[in-house]
Amino acid sequence: MEGKEILRQHIAKTASLTDEQFDFLFSHFKPRSFQKGQVVIGEGDKVDHEYFVVSGCLKAFFISDQIKMYILQFAMPTWWTSDYGALYNHTRASISIDCITDAQVLCLSNDDREKICRELHQAEYFFRWRTNRGYLASQKRLLSFMNNDARARYEELMALYPQLYNLVPKHLIAAYLGVSRETLSRLYNAHK
Amino acid sequence: MEGKEILRQHIAKTASLTDEQFDFLFSHFKPRSFQKGQVVIGEGDKVDHEYFVVSGCLKAFFISDQIKMYILQFAMPTWWTSDYGALYNHTRASISIDCITDAQVLCLSNDDREKICRELHQAEYFFRWRTNRGYLASQKRLLSFMNNDARARYEELMALYPQLYNLVPKHLIAAYLGVSRETLSRLYNAHK
Repeated sequence: MEGKEILRQHIAKTASLTDEQFDFLFSHFKPRSFQKGQVVIGEGDKVDHEYFVVSGCLKAFFISDQIKMYILQFAMPTWWTSDYGALYNHTRASISIDCITDAQVLCLSNDDREKICRELHQAEYFFRWRTNRGYLASQKRLLSFMNNDARARYEELMALYPQLYNLVPKHLIAAYLGVSRETLSRLYNAHK
Repeated sequence: MEGKEILRQHIAKTASLTDEQFDFLFSHFKPRSFQKGQVVIGEGDKVDHEYFVVSGCLKAFFISDQIKMYILQFAMPTWWTSDYGALYNHTRASISIDCITDAQVLCLSNDDREKICRELHQAEYFFRWRTNRGYLASQKRLLSFMNNDARARYEELMALYPQLYNLVPKHLIAAYLGVSRETLSRLYNAHK
């Protein structure tokens, strides 16, 4: 399926747009291809776009004290990713995003998202609910970090994306969960 | 200042509503008063409303293994609070909300928020940006928990609400930061 159709079905789960309205919305997205390992946003970059993933897998991460990697998000098909702090507040990127696999994305600029939302009430509705869901996922993950419950974080991640364990290198999954490789193996074996 | 005017100024920072539009919006809010210690949402409750705080201070929290309290949010004047997971997904509350001080709030039901958003495009814009900001705050706090950086969490909390240290019992601030009382004192003294 091509990117346009994937985006269309994704939005249709939340909001009703006519063909004409969707074509208008879609005309503001620009397709881009990235190779495995390529950087989409580097720490310190100016951030003007958010990205809708059509294929492949990206990761949003930051490196603490130039040593330890923390993974904020794996962005898989139909997920959105960016440094939203930098994008919304017009500041420089404080995290990085790169590609775990080759990836195809659709890019939408901050200005174009706001323009689309102004012109189409249903698009504003879509983006409100997209963020509502992102907020809930973030709160859920926060709770399991506060509570130091690695099992809950593991189960949440596998529920979100069951195939992840086979797609993504284990050290990256461990960095997402905030656990060692050994703990990850234990969680995986207990979960099977 | 009464609740209506406080809500009006709060919304005006983000969205432009005419007097008539604001009156329509406001007609869906119901004022309620709570006393110090009173429960607004109890774990397991049905959740139909979100709350805009006019005065006082509430806390959203959960208790793990019937022992340890984790505080997700202090809700102060002009902040919004609810168990949004339960509210959006129509499930029972998995967290609790009660009042640290006497408090006045404006209650808005899920159905009424959706109705207001359907009828007023500017209200949909307002609620989209409210959640965008909540999402950013949640991500920031998640990063500092992943990174186990209690200092960053302390500085973020004090930047959000400088008077909090004098308003809220110290053991609650420690429960928000996920640190001991002793660590909290050290952070406070280093920050002065």
